[in-house]
Formats: sequence, C-alpha cells, structure tokens
Amino acid sequence: MKVTLSALDTSESFFKPLVILELARDVKEETRKWLEKKINDKKKNGGAQLLIRPLIEKCEEQTLESQNVYLIGASTIRLLLGAESVGLVKECNDNTMRVFTYESRKNFKGFSDDNDDFLTMSECQFIIKHELENLRARDEKMIPGYPQAKLYPGKSILRRLLTSGLVTQFFPLHDNEALKKLESRWYNRFKLKYQPLDDIRVYFGETIALYFAFLEYFTFALIPMALIGLPYYVFDWEDYDKYVIFASFNLIWSTVILEVWKRGCALMTYRWGTLLMKRQFEEPRPGFHGVLGVNPVTGREEPLYSSFKRQLRIYLVSLPFVCLCLYFSLYVMMLYFDLEAWAQDLHRDSSVPELTNVLLFVPSIIYAIVIEIMNRLYRFAAEFLTSWENHRLESAYQNHLVLKVLVFNFLNCFASLFYIAFVMKDMKLLRQSLATLLITSQILNQIVETLLPYWLQRKYGLRVKKKVQALKADVDVTLYEQIVLEKEKGTYLGTFDDYLELFLQFGYVSLFSCVYPLAAAFAVLNNFSEINSDALKMCKVFKRPFAEPSASIGVWQLAFETMSVISVVTNCALIGMSPQLNAVFPHSKTDLILIVVAVEHALLALKFVLAFVIPDKPQEIQVKLAKLEFESLEALKQQVLGPTMGWEERRGGREGSQPEHS
Amino acid sequence: MKVTLSALDTSESFFKPLVILELARDVKEETRKWLEKKINDKKKNGGAQLLIRPLIEKCEEQTLESQNVYLIGASTIRLLLGAESVGLVKECNDNTMRVFTYESRKNFKGFSDDNDDFLTMSECQFIIKHELENLRARDEKMIPGYPQAKLYPGKSILRRLLTSGLVTQFFPLHDNEALKKLESRWYNRFKLKYQPLDDIRVYFGETIALYFAFLEYFTFALIPMALIGLPYYVFDWEDYDKYVIFASFNLIWSTVILEVWKRGCALMTYRWGTLLMKRQFEEPRPGFHGVLGVNPVTGREEPLYSSFKRQLRIYLVSLPFVCLCLYFSLYVMMLYFDLEAWAQDLHRDSSVPELTNVLLFVPSIIYAIVIEIMNRLYRFAAEFLTSWENHRLESAYQNHLVLKVLVFNFLNCFASLFYIAFVMKDMKLLRQSLATLLITSQILNQIVETLLPYWLQRKYGLRVKKKVQALKADVDVTLYEQIVLEKEKGTYLGTFDDYLELFLQFGYVSLFSCVYPLAAAFAVLNNFSEINSDALKMCKVFKRPFAEPSASIGVWQLAFETMSVISVVTNCALIGMSPQLNAVFPHSKTDLILIVVAVEHALLALKFVLAFVIPDKPQEIQVKLAKLEFESLEALKQQVLGPTMGWEERRGGREGSQPEHS
Repeated sequence: MKVTLSALDTSESFFKPLVILELARDVKEETRKWLEKKINDKKKNGGAQLLIRPLIEKCEEQTLESQNVYLIGASTIRLLLGAESVGLVKECNDNTMRVFTYESRKNFKGFSDDNDDFLTMSECQFIIKHELENLRARDEKMIPGYPQAKLYPGKSILRRLLTSGLVTQFFPLHDNEALKKLESRWYNRFKLKYQPLDDIRVYFGETIALYFAFLEYFTFALIPMALIGLPYYVFDWEDYDKYVIFASFNLIWSTVILEVWKRGCALMTYRWGTLLMKRQFEEPRPGFHGVLGVNPVTGREEPLYSSFKRQLRIYLVSLPFVCLCLYFSLYVMMLYFDLEAWAQDLHRDSSVPELTNVLLFVPSIIYAIVIEIMNRLYRFAAEFLTSWENHRLESAYQNHLVLKVLVFNFLNCFASLFYIAFVMKDMKLLRQSLATLLITSQILNQIVETLLPYWLQRKYGLRVKKKVQALKADVDVTLYEQIVLEKEKGTYLGTFDDYLELFLQFGYVSLFSCVYPLAAAFAVLNNFSEINSDALKMCKVFKRPFAEPSASIGVWQLAFETMSVISVVTNCALIGMSPQLNAVFPHSKTDLILIVVAVEHALLALKFVLAFVIPDKPQEIQVKLAKLEFESLEALKQQVLGPTMGWEERRGGREGSQPEHS
Repeated sequence: MKVTLSALDTSESFFKPLVILELARDVKEETRKWLEKKINDKKKNGGAQLLIRPLIEKCEEQTLESQNVYLIGASTIRLLLGAESVGLVKECNDNTMRVFTYESRKNFKGFSDDNDDFLTMSECQFIIKHELENLRARDEKMIPGYPQAKLYPGKSILRRLLTSGLVTQFFPLHDNEALKKLESRWYNRFKLKYQPLDDIRVYFGETIALYFAFLEYFTFALIPMALIGLPYYVFDWEDYDKYVIFASFNLIWSTVILEVWKRGCALMTYRWGTLLMKRQFEEPRPGFHGVLGVNPVTGREEPLYSSFKRQLRIYLVSLPFVCLCLYFSLYVMMLYFDLEAWAQDLHRDSSVPELTNVLLFVPSIIYAIVIEIMNRLYRFAAEFLTSWENHRLESAYQNHLVLKVLVFNFLNCFASLFYIAFVMKDMKLLRQSLATLLITSQILNQIVETLLPYWLQRKYGLRVKKKVQALKADVDVTLYEQIVLEKEKGTYLGTFDDYLELFLQFGYVSLFSCVYPLAAAFAVLNNFSEINSDALKMCKVFKRPFAEPSASIGVWQLAFETMSVISVVTNCALIGMSPQLNAVFPHSKTDLILIVVAVEHALLALKFVLAFVIPDKPQEIQVKLAKLEFESLEALKQQVLGPTMGWEERRGGREGSQPEHS
C-alpha cells in the first residue's frame, strides 16, 4: 500500500507538461528560484509537490520571450492523491459512483497501477490548478524580492503573484490529438446530430459540457414553440383566441422544459460524478482572505471571515449600488425616448428633410453606445464589489456576480421593450423593435464572438509557424510551437456570457411571445449555428480553459425560471391589451381586466403546482443518492464504534440469553 | 463488548411495563399463545424479542374484562439495540448530536451501564411500538385460529391483528409522577410564561412538542398584528390609506414569521436530535403492502410497491375524486345562498312575520349540518383513498392525507366568505360573518375538544376508583387502576385537527385582515387559552400518545405559506373594492384596478424575495449539519479503504522520494 521511491522514479521519467505558467519578463532570479522551490517542495514543508521545468533551459536572444515560461506536471501518484483532495467522484467496479481515494483506487473502474489514463488530462490539469491555487503562505511576509507584494499566513501565493503582475499567465495545455478527434465528432460534420457531450466533458470539463448540453436541450425544446408559431406568421392570424392558445401553450411549455431539464441534468451529472461532489467542503477560493483560524466544519486551518460582515457589505453597499445603477439606467432610457421624440418633431417640422432624416438615427446610435459603456462600467463595478464581498467559495462568488450582472442586463435589454409595450402601447413598434433586436444581436454576437477572433488567430498562427521553423534550439519544436501559439490566444472567461446570451434570447422569445410568435423560429435557427460557432470558439479561438466540475447550471436555472414567471405576466397583459380582445368587451373594460388578471393568477398557480409536482431528480437518481447517503450514515456508525460488529454477531452474542417471561 | 447473559438477567428482574396491548375478549387460546411467543421470540426466529406479561394471571369473574390485557416491556439492552434500529439521535459527550449505536453508547452524554434513564420513557415506548409494528410474517399464511385473517411474507402482524379486530387496543402507559411534574410546570399556573417545551418533548415526543411550540410561537407572532389592529376598531378608522398600511404590514409580517419559524424550528429539532434523523431510511409504514423484494437503497428485504402504480392511483383516482368533491361542495354552497335568498323573500312578502322570522335561520342550520356531514364523509373517503395509494412511508401518507383534507376544509370554511366578499360585495355582511365564524368556532372548539371529555372523564374516573377498591386480586392495585382508567380514555388521533384549527384561524386573520383588523386580537386571546386547554387535553383527557419524532411541522409549513400568498391576493382585491379608494378614482376604475394589480404583484415578488433571502436554517445549525456531512463522507472514504492511513502517514511513505527536477 505504501508509496515507494521506485514508483515515483518511473513516473518522473515520463514528465508530461500539463499546465503552463508564464512569469513576467523582469522577474528577479531570487523570486524565480523561490517559486520553483515552493512548487516543487514537499507538502509538509508548505510546497505543492509538483514538477516544474522551464520551457527553454539555455537563454538565446530570439527565444528571450519564452524564457519565463514554465511547464508544470506531476507524478501519477501525486495526481491520484490530488484527485482525492479535490474530492473527485469516479465510477467503481460495481457501477456505483464514489468519492475517489488513493487507498481505494483498486475499486475504481479502469484503474491499474501501470495505467496513466485513469485520470483524464483535464482532470489532471484541474488538480494541478487546485494545488497551485491552494499553495498558501506560511511564515513568509512578502514575495521574496518584492516587498510591496505582501503575504500573510493562509494567503494564496499564486493569487498574490497574479495580482502583483509577477505571473502573467497560467493555463492548461491543449492535447492536439484528442482535440482533433473531438472536433471531428463535434462540428466538422454538416448533418444534424447530437453533440458528443461525454467527450466534451472529458476534454473541457463539466461546466462547459453542461453549457453545451443546455444549449442543445434548449434548442430542441424551442422547436415545438417555433413550429406552433410559424402558421401565425404564414397565415397572418390575428384572432385573439389563437393568440391566447399560443401564449398559454408557451407558458406551460416553458415551465415543463425547465423542470425536465433539471431531471436530465441530474441524470447527466450523476454519470459524470459531479452530482455527488460536495461543493461545500471546497477549499476557500483563491481570492478569499481573512484571519487564519479553524474551519468549524472541517476542523482544518484556513482563513475565516465573518458571515455577518459579508451580509453587511452585501445589503448596505452592493444592494444600494445596484439599485442606483438600475435607476440610472432607466433614467438614461427615458432620456433616449425624449431625444427620439425631439428628433421626430424636428424631422416633421424640418425644411431640409434629407438632413434631419439622418438625424433620426442619432438618438438610437447614442443610446446604443451609452448602453454599451454602461454595461462595461457596471460589469467592472460588479466584479469589484463581489470580490470585495469576500465570498468563501468560488460558487458563492459566481452566484452573486451573476445575479448583479443579470438584473442590470435584463433591465438594459428589455426596459425599452416594456416601455414600448406598456407605456406607448404601440404593438407594431414593439414587434419591429423585437425583431430588430433579436436578429441583429444574434448575428452580431456570432461574428464578434467567434469568426473575427478565429480569423485573426489563423493569421497569427501562420506567422508563428514561420518563426518557429527558423528557430534552432535544444527544444522539442512541436511543443515549443504549440505553447507559443496557445500563449497568445485569448482567455475564455467562463460560460457567463454564453448563458447570458441564451437568457436574453429566452426573454425575447417568451416575454412578448404572443406579439411575435416567429421569435422562437429565429432562436432555433440561431442556436443551431451557435452550437457550431461556440464549439469552434472553444476548440480554436481560445486557450484551453481549466475544467471546472459543476452539478447543474446553478443560478441560471433560477434566472430562466424567473424569466418564465415574468413572461406569464407580460403575455397576459399583452393579450389583455390586444384590440381583438378589447372588441369583445366594448363597454366593460373593467371586466376584461379582471378576467385577464384572474387568468394570469390561474396560470401562475398552475406553474407553481407543476414545478412542485414534477420531481427535480428522476426516481433512479433519487434511489442512488439515498443509497449513498444510507451507506455513508452506516459508515459513520461503524467509525464511531471501532471494531466492526454486525447485527448478526450481536444477536449471536445474546444466544441462549433469551429471557423467558414468567 | 459482547452482551452477556447476566446483563439480560438483571434487567429481566426489573420488568417495567411500557406499553399495553389489549386483545379482543373472545380471542382463541391458540392465537394468544402464538402471539405471546411471536413477541417474545428471538429476532432471528422472526420474533420481536420483547417482554410480555398478562396484567392478571389468574382469571376471576369480576376482572374478566382485564383478562386480555398484556403489559409489554423490554430489557435495557433490547431497548438500546432498538434505539439503534430506529436511528435515534442523541447528544454525545463532545456536545455534538450523533446517531446512537449500541457499540458507541459510552460516547453519549448521560450513558452508563447501570443507568436506565438514558432513554426516556417515551423513547422506550416509541421503540417498542416500532418493533411491534415491524414484527412481520415470515412463512405464516394466516393468524393461527383465524383462517380469514390472511398473512403473507412481509405483512405486519400487528396491523393484521388490528384490522381483523383481534387486538382492540395498543397504547403506551402514562408515567403519573412525571406527568404531575409536567402539568405543574405547564398549565397549572396562571401567570404568563413560556411552555416547558423540552419537558413536553421528553414526555410526549417531538411531534406534539412541535405543535405546542408552533402554537406558542404563532400566538406571540400574532400580538403585533393584534396591537396594530386594535386602534382601527377603537377609533373606527375607515381611511383607505390606513387600511393599505395595515394590510401591507400584515402581508410582510406573515411572510417573515413563517420564515423565522423555520429557523427556530431547525434550532429546536437539532437540539432534540430529530433534525438529523433520516426519515427516508424509515422502515415502511405498517399499512404498506407489496411484493417482498430487496430495497435498492438499504439492501434489506422488505415489501416493494411500484411508484408508477402509486402515481397512477393518485392522479387517475384520488385527484379527480377530490376535484369532484370540491365541485360538489361549491354546488351545495350555491344552493345555500339560493335557499337564503328564498327565505329572505318569503320573510319580506310574508303576512305572518313571526313565523317566517324563525324560517330565516333554517337555511343556515341546514347548511351547517350538511357541511358537517360532508366533512365527515370526505374525511373518511380521504383516509381510505390515501391508504389505498399505498405510500411506503408514514410521512408520505400523512402528507397526502393532509393535502386532501386541507383543500376541502379550506373551501368549506372560506368559500362562503369569498362569495360574500367578491360576488355579493357586501363588506358589512363579510365582517359580520367573519366575526361570527371566528368567535363561535373558537368557543365551540374549546368546549367540544377539551372541557366536555374532561368532565366525562372525571365522572368515569371516580366510578373506576370505587370498583378497583372493591377488587381483591393478586395484582398491583395502583397499576391495575391506572391501566383500567387509561384503557377507557379516548385516543389522541394526532396533531392534525389542532393544526387544522390553527390553519383556519390563520385564514380568518389574514385572508380578510383589512376588513376585520380585530381578528388577530381574538385569535391571540383564543390561543392563550387554547394552549391551556390543549395541554389539559393531552395530560388528562386522552390516552398517552406514542412519541413520534419529527423535524418540522412538515406539510403545514407549506399550507401556512400558501395561505399567506392567497391572502396577498384577497387583501389587495378587498382594498381595491373599498369605497374610500374608489372615491379617489371616481372616473377611471380601470386605472384603479391596474394600480391594485401592480401593487399586488410587487407584494408577491417581495414575499418571494424575502423567502429566498432569509436562510431556512440559522448559520449555527448549517455549520453543524455541514460538519456532520463532512464527517460522514470522510468515514465513507475510510470504510472503503480498509486499514486507516492518514495523509501524514501517506506523505511519510514518500519521504525521501521527492523528485528533483532536472
């Protein structure tokens, strides 16, 4: 059972670079040595016990820029121990999913001592990232050589290096062979087929695989809506009863698809093992700071921060700030409508219609620019505030950030539509704005997000290739070329923007669905190409992202559900305002409103009943989870009592001692 | 560690009767012997391994009726093993709550081998009940002597004996000394003081203690509402703005108190250990039947029943039946209003007003009687249907029963008020009906529920005393008297009716709060005396109930929350209908309605945000639960890997094998 020297020796000879760490150009030699030692040092000496090698040993003039690039790897055993400390869940030989431990490694499917494939490359990279991020200062007061980069016990060293600019990059390497295979099965075909989600998960990790799974699911779920919406456009139906049917179907449908997604997601993440991974026992996130103390849950030493202080920061600073921003955004929108009206007036009264015709576009352009600026400023502020709130877990940080940005984006995107629909009550303008916004945003997104960077990337790639071919150095050329290429790629900043895009699309489709039934069809078309362009983006445009385990789409589930509740309200209101329906109640507008409100309440109640009645997890998964919980409770019992003694044995102990009643 | 013969011998000499089992008078000797053997037999022979003694050994003429009464007890060790099998959670010496196991008994607070007080009497009784109910048939095909009472493998024997009338009663004994102490601290004082909830829990178990805790909490929570409502009555305020303030306060308040209750409840049930008890690993409820198979969760043999079939029964039979009943109830209500109108007409046109004046009361009386009959019939049907749905767990059975009865009772109680408020729009009549219903139902309840049975009980008690004094038999007279007395007491049928009463009261207070602000004050007054009368009822009127562990008020939490959501809607509607508010918008009723609807939506949104933001469990409890989960996961890891080997040891194993990078 004991780990032997020879085992490590063998793995040592197969150094496989997994993660790239790039230092700033002018980092002092002292710091460099200290960091190398830190990463290489034993755990008990406060190191990360990983393998680290510079990309190029000898410094030549033309490779100067690669001089600060380090390759990081780890021995197989180190990775297996790391897998245990991140709490990886893997499939056992008896087909159950269990938390991996080094000692129980033989029980897991596909494990053998001479098999390096047990952990996937992305899992290894995740483990290395986890270990590096949790490389914490002990008694160092500062980064050696940089007195201004202060350290205190428990501070993540990598985080400090990043914030003080000493480490410029830190990313996992692509596996070109595996990537090519994945690409060929993912988007290099032109027939419609399900995405290879399990392969995506193996290569990019669960968070990204879940995004693509959701994107695919959502697209298929939209098809019925699109099909039902099409005849409304084709036959130009305008009867209010048909619209009522369409809207009702949409509302029930959107509830059902979100519930069914939860179930499918549980099935998938159970298979992937992440459903069982306990997020709450995560190490604190790298940016988390506090006073070193003992975590009451795990009993381990780590920085602690009072939850009360965090609440104060959230409710007394962040919340008012967000409200202020929302108010400001609404104010800007009102200014835009004023400006718009002023331009219209000017155009009408103008003697030079050619000149003022151009002027008509000015308000929209200004508004679009202002919105873009506000979005960026707000995003920056939201990130700062959420970081300042000092959440212990990465997931909590993400949730708070998403919530902040979401609310603001929702308002920015839909406030003008709401204004047109419910204040100006101009359905024609609403339909027109909706169509314009939906279609232009979708086209722009795909171009800006994927095609443009891909094109730039290709051009740069050719240049690098030529440069590398000219190079004569004592180095693995393929690897060198790959690293130089990847080093220059952009960083994928997480699924946030991709989900946000889907979320806003869902808003366009559902909020005003009864005014513009064609929206779903456009969304479906867009999403089919979005799958491909997002896949291209992941594989070609960006650096490989670190795999992040996740068990669900998290706060986005809530966001989509909230959107579907809001859409009940808006659709009922729109139907209530439709001239066809108003013609049915010519004399009693009050009755009409009361009926609409009653229907709306009934639909909302139905939604909640549906959400309540449909179980979040399929029966099958419920049983598996219950079984695991049962086992873990039994195990806890065993642990408390020392030598194991089953019920049978205990009963045996009382054999013959059966009392006879008198 | 092994249980010795001598240990059981000692406990045998202290036979303490805990539970009474009464057989039917004419039970065959054969059956009697079989049952005695079954209860007494060892576990591995399919018995319950409990102690059983007849109350009176020798049969005398005048004690014939007590001849079939058996006392059931158990040895201390048997009870401790039983505590383990029901999964009791107790406090350890290190102040954590842990699942009790026999082998780890020394780690628990207050345990020592010569101490019989470790398990409270009610816990012992609960354990005996659990063991008797789970005494299951193995290869018996019928109850011996009664071929019509069929058995099959896995069928609960006690359940079959009860349904075939062979066992007439089965209840735990009171502990008169402890009861007196409890009474003196509970309701025998006339000063206002908190109830001794921990003592109530020790004596009656968690379910009943939680009811009293909720009753007390709810009463205190109503006081602010009552205080704010009083001036409206005293000064006869009729301004709509004041009503709006009152209603808004009520709505927010009711959300907050329900959320805070959840937190308080978690705190309390953590201390009591029930928060950690895993209900999902319960044995199936006694009435559950199915084909014997292996439970996929626990791996134990027990009856299984397809969840799909159960769903079919629920949705295809129970649900339509409930809907039909609701429809019928509404139909009866409409008939009542017709009859009422007809009686009014008759009275108006009558030439003999004295006669028709009496006639005016006839519709109300008929309606009251019909409602009462419908309630009873429906209750019976609901119990039958829920039992037929064949739920595996007692808790699931209770939830489905409560839901069915609740919906029907809600309609029966409030439909007429809704009709008066929103169809007849007669606020004066609404206020009057509300006051009449609230006050009369409260007074009637207290009389019927408590005082009447108590009075009957006392009369009967004196008679029994005389009879017992005349008796000369070879028996412990005090015990004999106690058992004969308790045997004749009614059975407490669970907290259902008590919660239902509170639920309907909450409805009266909140649904129409802006029409009748005084309701809260009446409710507070009633509840202060309700606490006393319910306590009296528990201690004096009924048989001691079996203690039932529970971690929350379960489905009632949801019921109260739903009521508070409905009350937002009704209150907004009532305020919208108020003449004061209508006077403000004399020309634009549409605007008024739109504003009211907007405010209603805002309030509902606020409610959901509040419920979302307030954590269900206090920080402290969250940490404790997380810690336990963490430990149990660690324990599971340990279990899989055999000999324990910590991180330090493992690191030690690699000492000196630290690779040096080249």
